[in-house]
Amino acid sequence: MQNVAVVGAGLVGSLQAILLAKRGFKVDVYERRPDLRKAEILAGRSINLALSDRGWKALDKAGISDEIRKIAIPMFGRKMHAVDGTLTYQPYGKENQAIFSVSRGGLNQKLMNLADDYPEIGYYFNMRCEDIDFDSNTIRFTDTEKDQIVEKSYDAVFATDGAFSAVRNRMMKYPMFDYSQSYLSHGYKELVIPPNEDGSHKIDKNCLHIWPRGEFMMIALANLDGSFTVTLFFPMEGELSFASIDTPEKVKDFFEKTFPDSIPLMPTLLEDYFSNPTSTLVTVRCNPWNHGTQAVLMGDAAHAVVPFYGQGMNAGFEDCTVFDELLEQYGDDWNTIFSEYSRLRVPDGNAIADLALNNYIEMRDSTADPDFLLRKKIERKFSDLYPNDWMPLYEQVTFSHIRYSDALKRGQYQRGIMDEIMQTEGIYEKWDSEEIMNRIAEKAKTK
Amino acid sequence: MQNVAVVGAGLVGSLQAILLAKRGFKVDVYERRPDLRKAEILAGRSINLALSDRGWKALDKAGISDEIRKIAIPMFGRKMHAVDGTLTYQPYGKENQAIFSVSRGGLNQKLMNLADDYPEIGYYFNMRCEDIDFDSNTIRFTDTEKDQIVEKSYDAVFATDGAFSAVRNRMMKYPMFDYSQSYLSHGYKELVIPPNEDGSHKIDKNCLHIWPRGEFMMIALANLDGSFTVTLFFPMEGELSFASIDTPEKVKDFFEKTFPDSIPLMPTLLEDYFSNPTSTLVTVRCNPWNHGTQAVLMGDAAHAVVPFYGQGMNAGFEDCTVFDELLEQYGDDWNTIFSEYSRLRVPDGNAIADLALNNYIEMRDSTADPDFLLRKKIERKFSDLYPNDWMPLYEQVTFSHIRYSDALKRGQYQRGIMDEIMQTEGIYEKWDSEEIMNRIAEKAKTK
Repeated sequence: MQNVAVVGAGLVGSLQAILLAKRGFKVDVYERRPDLRKAEILAGRSINLALSDRGWKALDKAGISDEIRKIAIPMFGRKMHAVDGTLTYQPYGKENQAIFSVSRGGLNQKLMNLADDYPEIGYYFNMRCEDIDFDSNTIRFTDTEKDQIVEKSYDAVFATDGAFSAVRNRMMKYPMFDYSQSYLSHGYKELVIPPNEDGSHKIDKNCLHIWPRGEFMMIALANLDGSFTVTLFFPMEGELSFASIDTPEKVKDFFEKTFPDSIPLMPTLLEDYFSNPTSTLVTVRCNPWNHGTQAVLMGDAAHAVVPFYGQGMNAGFEDCTVFDELLEQYGDDWNTIFSEYSRLRVPDGNAIADLALNNYIEMRDSTADPDFLLRKKIERKFSDLYPNDWMPLYEQVTFSHIRYSDALKRGQYQRGIMDEIMQTEGIYEKWDSEEIMNRIAEKAKTK
Repeated sequence: MQNVAVVGAGLVGSLQAILLAKRGFKVDVYERRPDLRKAEILAGRSINLALSDRGWKALDKAGISDEIRKIAIPMFGRKMHAVDGTLTYQPYGKENQAIFSVSRGGLNQKLMNLADDYPEIGYYFNMRCEDIDFDSNTIRFTDTEKDQIVEKSYDAVFATDGAFSAVRNRMMKYPMFDYSQSYLSHGYKELVIPPNEDGSHKIDKNCLHIWPRGEFMMIALANLDGSFTVTLFFPMEGELSFASIDTPEKVKDFFEKTFPDSIPLMPTLLEDYFSNPTSTLVTVRCNPWNHGTQAVLMGDAAHAVVPFYGQGMNAGFEDCTVFDELLEQYGDDWNTIFSEYSRLRVPDGNAIADLALNNYIEMRDSTADPDFLLRKKIERKFSDLYPNDWMPLYEQVTFSHIRYSDALKRGQYQRGIMDEIMQTEGIYEKWDSEEIMNRIAEKAKTK
């Protein structure tokens, strides 16, 4: 193999192009949209992402972690905003462990600029993938600027074209390809907390702010310019929903009752609410992730997940890490590389999809629950005492490289233990006692 | 609404066209393939289906049950063929209850001929649906004979275009449309038992023959010409699989060891095995089944199921029944008709998909198990004694019009009771005693 195509110049596509170029491949990257470095970023879709350890590992491989760190804002924990304005803080991990707020657009631009430094990499914009003939591995594109059909053949195709992947749609027409897309009944809308006049942040920039409200929630992540991107996750239909809250009066009334402390922070709330789109949340799973040695799926094309674990991009970057490690291990045995990539990653893609769905309930509901906060404190304490026996699930997912599928299993086991511990009479008083710690130790070791 | 399109002239499409014409709609039926009444039937795809009560009900509505009965062969039970040649018989229901072996091609032709009698119905063949613009409800077809694009607009579109529905693919691109396709690891291949020289059947035509072998099975259904269509359901890959049994010697050896009594019945076994295709088995689920009042999905386009309950076509015909009843009930309130159709039928589609998957294990494995056969005898006896308290699951699905989703639930409840009863000491001796019947009665009534 020598000449390969990457379809989709998003985060995962650009990173994969760099990793492939570093191994000596000639890489053509095709993107349906115009070059985002020349285009204006879409209003209402500012989108920031939480970069964590799995993402950093892949960026390290590409040699650009230091540059990205400059545009990343560390968040050391969650800050919960109660209706009455009470704030509760919960650290994500150990001291100094953080997830990082980054702008999708900014990160994508950096990755593209770095890729451009490689003579092996060429970018082609406004190229919509229409079809692939897997017999000759010929991709048919429409050049939407010139309104022309372009056909190109490659030794292999890396499909990083997102949740609605055109390459995957082609793979889907072959027998034995399993696929599912499943929408949440909740959608989301982006709002904004602008900076203070001096450019500073109006609230603590070093945490992820959550307004947990049981059936729904609002969150805020800091941007470099002093603003916050705010996201309201809310039912699409029903009594309290995007469908029902449909006039300025209703929005004002709803926010005053539900998120009163946010009102002074969001002067353009009403404009933003009505001008920004309501977006849906989809989970995509499929199997296998390869089509022979002709194509592999990576990132959202393979595993679109809901955003509640902050792992969508990180999981995609880990796909790149795993593929790179397989190249390292198996050299030019492409049959093994492609089939092993699929065999290894499909269960992890399914696991992070499940974890993300479960975490929505945790974020919107449990983070406001004293029992939940106590659980986290007990786990933190025990994990500090017995670091080899217990890593809290959030840390496994966010601050480790344990396979997602293993983390999901261990997390379920730990939950069983904590369910029992929380039944202890007087647990709120003696949660950090030797008795409790010893009981957990015993259970954790019989694992 | 006045002008409607049916996309797909298969069994469900043709029946739906008739039912719509009976209610005064002008119906254009489009079919991707040539008119099957003029084309030769594909070799190796003879396909016969088991028509049962849900199917008959819809045919009654269309007024053609009597005609279909002429080309249907009743099967009153299963006949299991053990490796040593022992035959075991198990009736499907009460005396005279039967499912009916019909040829897909023959039934489809009958339905099309009947539809042609309606001046309201027009058939258009060699028309491949490419796309639908739901704003104007304009369907774009390629006329594959003339190699022309044809566009036509309709008040509503009935999509009966099968498991790989083009209409559904278009609906899938809209937000909030859930979809999954999932392949069994087993596939199938059709073989044949030819008639005797005098045109008679070589084995009993009035039962469904099963060669249950644990991990796989073979079945045979009678045709009118004295032949049987035989289907081998078998793993696609693995030690014993279509992939591994790949030479005439291996096929011969495998059949001699596994299905010895079938060898003298199938003189063309080796030719058929290698010339007939190996086909895959897919389950398709989606939600919703309507796109506004523009389109609804029916039959395999909405719910492709594996064939092990013999309900694929019957479920599709029941879709037609339910839609017709909604037209009856709600007149021209199309919003209600379309959304109610989806709301009512999606859970039933999912239920029959589950039932069909479960029944594969029952057919290939349990039918060779004495415990299973005893369970069926106990259920039969109890059901005859207390017909209001117990209808065996198979009868609910096959010989009733109970919603599939209700049947699935009741079946699970009944299974729990039977699991307990089967634990009884000496159950093989006293299975039909008053004691056992009373115990079931007690449990069934606390339901």
